[in-house]
Amino acid sequence: MTAAKSDTRERLVEVAAQLFWEQGYAATGVAQILRAAEARSGSLYYFFPTKEDLLIAVLDRYKQILWPAVIQPAFDRASDPIERIFAIMDGYRQLLTMTSCRQGCPIGNLALELSDSHPAAAMLIAQNFTGWRAAVRECLDAAEDRLPEDLDRERLAGFILTVMEGGVMQARAYKDIEPFEEAVTHLRDYLDRLLAAGTTWSAPRTNPTD
Amino acid sequence: MTAAKSDTRERLVEVAAQLFWEQGYAATGVAQILRAAEARSGSLYYFFPTKEDLLIAVLDRYKQILWPAVIQPAFDRASDPIERIFAIMDGYRQLLTMTSCRQGCPIGNLALELSDSHPAAAMLIAQNFTGWRAAVRECLDAAEDRLPEDLDRERLAGFILTVMEGGVMQARAYKDIEPFEEAVTHLRDYLDRLLAAGTTWSAPRTNPTD
Repeated sequence: MTAAKSDTRERLVEVAAQLFWEQGYAATGVAQILRAAEARSGSLYYFFPTKEDLLIAVLDRYKQILWPAVIQPAFDRASDPIERIFAIMDGYRQLLTMTSCRQGCPIGNLALELSDSHPAAAMLIAQNFTGWRAAVRECLDAAEDRLPEDLDRERLAGFILTVMEGGVMQARAYKDIEPFEEAVTHLRDYLDRLLAAGTTWSAPRTNPTD
Repeated sequence: MTAAKSDTRERLVEVAAQLFWEQGYAATGVAQILRAAEARSGSLYYFFPTKEDLLIAVLDRYKQILWPAVIQPAFDRASDPIERIFAIMDGYRQLLTMTSCRQGCPIGNLALELSDSHPAAAMLIAQNFTGWRAAVRECLDAAEDRLPEDLDRERLAGFILTVMEGGVMQARAYKDIEPFEEAVTHLRDYLDRLLAAGTTWSAPRTNPTD
């Protein structure tokens, strides 16, 4: 592919990603994508014969930028593995506040809009979620010796994703960061209690009746 | 309004609710609603001059059926206030399993699709969430003496809604009930820890150095 072609393709994917994020997939027309990307319909159909092909490229791109755009910047802000999880959450908080709670997680939006009707997209949406979970799981694994021994860290990573997505949804519904903050506060309280329990359990136990 | 007219209006709202839930708002065409409701476009425009008017009626209906269709059946299955919260969650689990994880919370879908673009709908979506939170808050208030004294029960109710909505989203994205189950498992673990802390705190404290 020539450099110019590759630029056009990239611009179409970027513009589509932005519009799907702001408006949803069904609500975004191909004509609007072409206008915003300043592209001709010939180029669009050359790279993406259908709107769904473009959606697949958008979801593929999200997978590729998860680490450089979401995870690594958070990890750079904190070295403690538990704090790294909250640094990831803080990235979404910033996104919400910068957009007056209009834009949260682009994957979550598409998950609820498309999971039933677009199987190929649904698979990529799940892969995006799985990548996010894996990053959080990595943090939990690094804190393994501070957490309760019988804790299922994979499931806890899924729970943390659940809290993040649910919190973003609430913040957007209320146009207020407060529901997201309250979700993070309770998640922190829960992790604090797990850490406290982990610490107790790994210490030698003294029996008061000894 | 005559009985026949009222029936037609009700049928349009029911059919629209179902289609918006299955497909999303933007993806549902007025023609499809008319076909499914076996109604004429004249009746639709008589009751609902715009598609958004119909959306507002759908969201109003969800507010009205929250207690009779969601909360009361759950409360009838459990008398313990904490178990009532999990009975509400179990209602969503049943909905997910009955629909092969295709349909979860209709309000959550519309929240992510419409909160930015449809202010009147956004207000009603928030009111639906607030009604749900209030029901869970009622349960937490009833369990007040078993929970830590400094617990903010209103915020915890919001956190529980966050977990429910996030869990439903994950189950739909993966087409698998497991992420929802893991969310409920961790929510129960968190509430168990709060109840255990509440019990300790309300008991007379003994100081081992006394």
